[in-house]
Amino acid sequence: MDVHSNYSDFFEGTEKLLEVWFCRTDGKDDNCDLRKISREQWESLLQEVKCVIISFKRSEHLDSYVLSESSMFVSKRCFILKTCGSTTLLNAVTPLLYIVKMTTGFNFVQDIFYSRKNFMRPELQNKPHTSFEDEIESLEGIFEDGAAYCMGRINSDCWYLYTLNTPLGLHGNPVADQTLEVIMQDLDQNVMSIFTQEGSSSARDATQKSGIDQIYPGAMLDEYLFDPCGYSVNGILKGRYYFTIHITPEPHCSYVSFETNAPQDNYHDLVNTLLKMFLPGKFVMTLFANKLSVAAKGMKESCNTEFHSYNRKELQVCRFNAYDLTYALFAKAPS
Amino acid sequence: MDVHSNYSDFFEGTEKLLEVWFCRTDGKDDNCDLRKISREQWESLLQEVKCVIISFKRSEHLDSYVLSESSMFVSKRCFILKTCGSTTLLNAVTPLLYIVKMTTGFNFVQDIFYSRKNFMRPELQNKPHTSFEDEIESLEGIFEDGAAYCMGRINSDCWYLYTLNTPLGLHGNPVADQTLEVIMQDLDQNVMSIFTQEGSSSARDATQKSGIDQIYPGAMLDEYLFDPCGYSVNGILKGRYYFTIHITPEPHCSYVSFETNAPQDNYHDLVNTLLKMFLPGKFVMTLFANKLSVAAKGMKESCNTEFHSYNRKELQVCRFNAYDLTYALFAKAPS
Repeated sequence: MDVHSNYSDFFEGTEKLLEVWFCRTDGKDDNCDLRKISREQWESLLQEVKCVIISFKRSEHLDSYVLSESSMFVSKRCFILKTCGSTTLLNAVTPLLYIVKMTTGFNFVQDIFYSRKNFMRPELQNKPHTSFEDEIESLEGIFEDGAAYCMGRINSDCWYLYTLNTPLGLHGNPVADQTLEVIMQDLDQNVMSIFTQEGSSSARDATQKSGIDQIYPGAMLDEYLFDPCGYSVNGILKGRYYFTIHITPEPHCSYVSFETNAPQDNYHDLVNTLLKMFLPGKFVMTLFANKLSVAAKGMKESCNTEFHSYNRKELQVCRFNAYDLTYALFAKAPS
Repeated sequence: MDVHSNYSDFFEGTEKLLEVWFCRTDGKDDNCDLRKISREQWESLLQEVKCVIISFKRSEHLDSYVLSESSMFVSKRCFILKTCGSTTLLNAVTPLLYIVKMTTGFNFVQDIFYSRKNFMRPELQNKPHTSFEDEIESLEGIFEDGAAYCMGRINSDCWYLYTLNTPLGLHGNPVADQTLEVIMQDLDQNVMSIFTQEGSSSARDATQKSGIDQIYPGAMLDEYLFDPCGYSVNGILKGRYYFTIHITPEPHCSYVSFETNAPQDNYHDLVNTLLKMFLPGKFVMTLFANKLSVAAKGMKESCNTEFHSYNRKELQVCRFNAYDLTYALFAKAPS
């Protein structure tokens, strides 16, 4: 796939991210599984988003898809779709609910989380992604009583979230859950050159040169190097845990995102590893953790902390019914 | 002043609130004072906002004005203007900066805080208050690098803030500072009937019947009962401290705001007193405290707390350069 057609073209690396949890209202979900959904069904759903599957790997608990624009993960109860560029992710929601109802045995949307950073060039997006207000309107056509937030500065770097804000444990046993996202911009161009066809001989070569293979040693990796540049990797960890990295290396719009749902009581060292690997000029970190998560206890240490040679510009904490969320923005200190 | 012309008319009680701190870049502000500004200068400034002064009182440290739409407070370095209805508060900013420069000896805006809750009927507002985006644009025409935030739900109850987010102690000695605001809606109609010409024989009568005179015993009060309904009170406390309450009693748009800059290490009991006095269906509380304030230590106890017969719907904490801010929304628990 030629999503990055030219070094000088603009590419919107900023992803739209959708996470949907399903359940049964009677709690009896033993025979329910989102992985009953067929490849053909996913392909038809992704047509609405304007992207395609380019690679697939699975473990006992998790199906992982690398897409022409970012990634998709499917486990028993949880669907995650992350797409960049000018894809129309929210067009997938109504077909998703229909396919899940017809195929999986689940009969209820337990919670959804739709989030993204502010776009670099919002005027290049397609409906309903033309503004967060338009995205809210689209979601309010599907869900009732959703809550929409803007973390950070409305008039600068910020991060939008729409969630149903469901109480913990509605319909069925609650499970520990956490998501860390690190969104890096203004990256080091020597590092970025690794993620081009000129800079690396293969996707695996880029993975090894950059050190991405050392972040979670033992992870099952599925990586892709785009032509002429751009890189994605899905990492399947034990259980239903994953990590994923997406890289837009072009100098005028460089963007790297890291995301994982792997539980840790403190993400400080992990984030530090990412910063040393990619050398961003600025980065946003967001951390969700529900009350059962080990990450909830260490939230303060993970986000309300110092990172060497970075200044914290923003810190916001938001308490939801089931989750605590921390948003922080850091920028390189003047040297 | 007949701002509440009829019980059945809609009135936007939701205030716009502006707080501006001034300083001298050389730190030598001994001879500087905002209270050098004359009554005539204030009156001309308020013409831009479309409101007028209806009463004035002063103490050694504070000048207090009751306005046709809400209140104004002036101390040595700090200017506070709060106006409701369809007033155009932000039109005062440019004239204010001019008058201060010409009259007071101050030569620098240390910080500004412009805030408001979401309007009940935004379509009735005049430019630049037609949306928060329009307000930001107006402020960005005057200030550089201001930060704009939305606390709470963008698509429901929320509270907007624009601030310069200045580091503590830039130009001159920093002073302890804190502001508590409690914005109450859907109020008890028996209580609200006190704040009408039918329900009380005078402004003082309304103050005493409601118990407002007992909130800060010993405060110098300046109260006003509008015709046919509506009530404002400014309370001058010791030092440069004040409290102010504004009441729109009409059943379909009832609104009561309380604000004070008086330092307390814990505002829980004060808020509880207000809740028992006014019996709101829902309320927002916001608390700013800088690092020198006693209120910073008790922030958690003030906001992240329970109030009898209310459920907390939202809690957000925001760390600025000089201030910590907590935003919380509470709603009456179903009985």
